[in-house]
Amino acid sequence: MSTRATSIWGWGYADKFPDTEARRSLAGQVSPLLGGPELEPREPVAPRLPSPRVAPPESLAALCSVDEADRAAHTYGKGYGDLVRGFHGDFSSAPDFVAHPRSEEDVRAIMDWCGEQRVALIPFGGGTSVVRGVEAAIGNGFRGAVSMDLRRLDRVLEVDPVSRSARIQAGATGPVLESQLASYGFTLRHFPQSFEFSTLGGWIATRAGGHFATLYTHIDDLVQSTRMLTPRGLFETRRLPASGAGPAPDRLVLGSEGTLGVITEAWVRLQSRPRFRANASVHFPEFHAAVRAVRELSQSGLHPSNCRLLDAQESFMNGVAGDGSSVLVLAFESADHPLQAWMERALAITASHGGECREGARYRSDESGAQPRARGAAESWRSAFIEAPYLQNVMVSLGVIADTFETACTWDKFDSLHAAILDSVRGALERLCGGGLVSCRFTHVYPDGPAPYYTFLGPAKRGGELEQWMALKQAASDAISAHGGTITHHHAVGRLHRPWYDRERPEPFALALRAVKGALDPQGILNPGVLVGP
Amino acid sequence: MSTRATSIWGWGYADKFPDTEARRSLAGQVSPLLGGPELEPREPVAPRLPSPRVAPPESLAALCSVDEADRAAHTYGKGYGDLVRGFHGDFSSAPDFVAHPRSEEDVRAIMDWCGEQRVALIPFGGGTSVVRGVEAAIGNGFRGAVSMDLRRLDRVLEVDPVSRSARIQAGATGPVLESQLASYGFTLRHFPQSFEFSTLGGWIATRAGGHFATLYTHIDDLVQSTRMLTPRGLFETRRLPASGAGPAPDRLVLGSEGTLGVITEAWVRLQSRPRFRANASVHFPEFHAAVRAVRELSQSGLHPSNCRLLDAQESFMNGVAGDGSSVLVLAFESADHPLQAWMERALAITASHGGECREGARYRSDESGAQPRARGAAESWRSAFIEAPYLQNVMVSLGVIADTFETACTWDKFDSLHAAILDSVRGALERLCGGGLVSCRFTHVYPDGPAPYYTFLGPAKRGGELEQWMALKQAASDAISAHGGTITHHHAVGRLHRPWYDRERPEPFALALRAVKGALDPQGILNPGVLVGP
Repeated sequence: MSTRATSIWGWGYADKFPDTEARRSLAGQVSPLLGGPELEPREPVAPRLPSPRVAPPESLAALCSVDEADRAAHTYGKGYGDLVRGFHGDFSSAPDFVAHPRSEEDVRAIMDWCGEQRVALIPFGGGTSVVRGVEAAIGNGFRGAVSMDLRRLDRVLEVDPVSRSARIQAGATGPVLESQLASYGFTLRHFPQSFEFSTLGGWIATRAGGHFATLYTHIDDLVQSTRMLTPRGLFETRRLPASGAGPAPDRLVLGSEGTLGVITEAWVRLQSRPRFRANASVHFPEFHAAVRAVRELSQSGLHPSNCRLLDAQESFMNGVAGDGSSVLVLAFESADHPLQAWMERALAITASHGGECREGARYRSDESGAQPRARGAAESWRSAFIEAPYLQNVMVSLGVIADTFETACTWDKFDSLHAAILDSVRGALERLCGGGLVSCRFTHVYPDGPAPYYTFLGPAKRGGELEQWMALKQAASDAISAHGGTITHHHAVGRLHRPWYDRERPEPFALALRAVKGALDPQGILNPGVLVGP
Repeated sequence: MSTRATSIWGWGYADKFPDTEARRSLAGQVSPLLGGPELEPREPVAPRLPSPRVAPPESLAALCSVDEADRAAHTYGKGYGDLVRGFHGDFSSAPDFVAHPRSEEDVRAIMDWCGEQRVALIPFGGGTSVVRGVEAAIGNGFRGAVSMDLRRLDRVLEVDPVSRSARIQAGATGPVLESQLASYGFTLRHFPQSFEFSTLGGWIATRAGGHFATLYTHIDDLVQSTRMLTPRGLFETRRLPASGAGPAPDRLVLGSEGTLGVITEAWVRLQSRPRFRANASVHFPEFHAAVRAVRELSQSGLHPSNCRLLDAQESFMNGVAGDGSSVLVLAFESADHPLQAWMERALAITASHGGECREGARYRSDESGAQPRARGAAESWRSAFIEAPYLQNVMVSLGVIADTFETACTWDKFDSLHAAILDSVRGALERLCGGGLVSCRFTHVYPDGPAPYYTFLGPAKRGGELEQWMALKQAASDAISAHGGTITHHHAVGRLHRPWYDRERPEPFALALRAVKGALDPQGILNPGVLVGP
């Protein structure tokens, strides 16, 4: 584990939070985007935590921390509402203590103790949930709450080069597992925006979205088998490339969000390091023409690795276009073959919809399989992608509401869904913040529909941020729900999305999930309030 | 629905059962394959059915049939054991009557009546189960059993050309739904061997395997949303290209085998009709070299539509090679682009493993998207594929045990799994039948492993076929189970695979499934004995 200190209240490393002067300068850049409100940086307030209700037992003391900083660091995820509460020093949902198991036996011992003591157990990976998925908001039925940090379980245990698979402990973060896989010449190539901090177990529990814009979009597609400790025993599936034997057991683990057990390991499908790459950025004067081009691409069977469409606002903010164009960041990659035929056909499709590939396609081959430096639009986009969450810290300190949300819908519904979302969120920003902006990009695309991802910014009323933000979130979520989208394409349900999730799922499926919860976690100690229950 | 009569006891159309003389001639061809046993055709025995225990109520009489031929036709699936029992006139598990609902309301009414009367309800699509999945072997806890034939629900209700999707009733058979889709220029391209008779609902309930050898191998991958009537209400999921909202609800319907509800409709993902095709057959002197070639192909990202490897025995029986070669039947197809680059790279891979493409690759483009006639190895293979189940009828009449089974495993385990299966099944054939043969092909391949499919033949002891066959099935299944395979890649669990399925799935998943069954079908009337329960 890295020893570089992470922020207690905000995203990422503490040392990346700019000083007051630098934030003042950023305020000068942000203000014009929002119609010129006065933005003055403030400083975070020292954390206030409640006294613990329960203490770790003697037998587990060596694995547990009652340290206030540790408890504070495990209180929230990294959603906008989390940052605001943390920035203001409000750590009222802090867990009573934090457990740091070093083995599956430790996980079992902690889980057993929680069951005996009627203490809620909140599995914690990277703590990057944006849906209140790791917060001990557990209601009154428990004597206390323990946050279980899995990051000491961070080893690649086995690599099978023939089947291109690896057995990896659930607490390994992106960089930790990738560096171990690199020594075998493999990569998982699952790069969610949270990659630096989030863990394999967290990805599986939340069905995280990753690097590939098509085909292998979710971690679901990269999971070969899972190992999850439940209060009723070990849920371990057989390593299989595929099966038709009953409903797929792994699909119950994927998306279980810590409510059915603690994921301790998984076998995952690896990629050989890409040796051939093709990149292009395609400019479209008109967003809806770009959407039609992406739709045709998604149905072409070409399977680009990157097919991220940025609308004009998003292109401007990411520095890839400033002329009102929408920009498609397009890429193919392969460990096996050169990609000219793929890219040429893709550019013929985009051209037929009025897309202009100003700089032409770039092809690279690298026999070593080393990761080359991206350049041009791809580099601007990638660097903005990784740094974006840090900006949210700054926004919170400047009194700007800044958040994202995503969905997926079938192509036939996209135009009306998109219009409704823009209308609803812009209207809410106007009403609540006196203005602001909304941008859209596609993160993943499927033959039958896109996964659009929205960013919104608006000046906050100091002290009223949470109410304003919840009203904005409600406006966005209601529009999604009413127009045929899903409440989340890859940010999970947690506690934040429950109202819309409960309406989205069929009622008999809710009955089924409740029954499964009752069978595997009869005392209901695992992440109470997430997916099922009050 | 077709009016051409289907066989009561055997596969397919009754008129395709050869007369005695023709079967005698076939016996002359089969006998040498099996070491020369004397094979004399016999004739099927007239069906004997038990008297019905319950009768349809007045309110449902118009939807129900008590006709003996109808009851007999709904007694079994089409596995070897089914054919033998039917051939000998043993229809002892016949349902008490057959219901033919014309609407979802009819399904609801029949289900309600069964619940009130404690009568088991067996959903029936094409009746092509080979795992005793549609047989009313229901134990003693019920007053009787009704087979519910869904084939009157056979309409394509809606087509969304923008998202390339269609809403189709669950009782539509392959040809019935394809002919309706053709008028819109689309195709589902899900072609299991049972295509002519099996239904969309059956495919979903059993996670059927289809046309594509890579990527979209199971119906699972083509399902956008499902609609299933359960005793506790309508389980209908939202049409979505993807979602990350909790465990995927459709994945509980897929593989549920009629135990949780009756699937009435689904939205499925369509394909545009292929306009470009590339075909090749590649001969390998050595099976394991061919396996390595297929493995590299499966990991290449080329995604062939067909990648079916036939071992020497299979190649001989299918008439594609008689010289001891293993043959890879390779194809690419696209509605979007010519396929030279794909096929050329694929043939470079197979050549690097010693594969010889004797006739070169053939490329065709057809702007109309009409289905061209296959030729050469592909044609031999396709025609053998469709006709193979008819041969099983003949084998039963000749006193030859003929059956198939399939599995999937990771690549690292394939060599030992394959050796163990051949060893075990050949040993059992020798012991039980005094000889016989086993062949293998790959039907589907994944980056992390193949789905091998085995055929075995051996002379039966007349009157002892079922015991011999069960012993052979046990030998095969034990070998699969012990060497890391799944008990089924695409033939489902039914009642036949239960012992191995119960060992394959994690115990907490069995608890979960039982809980779901209890929540959705509290009286346990739906397909009792399948997946869960005694």
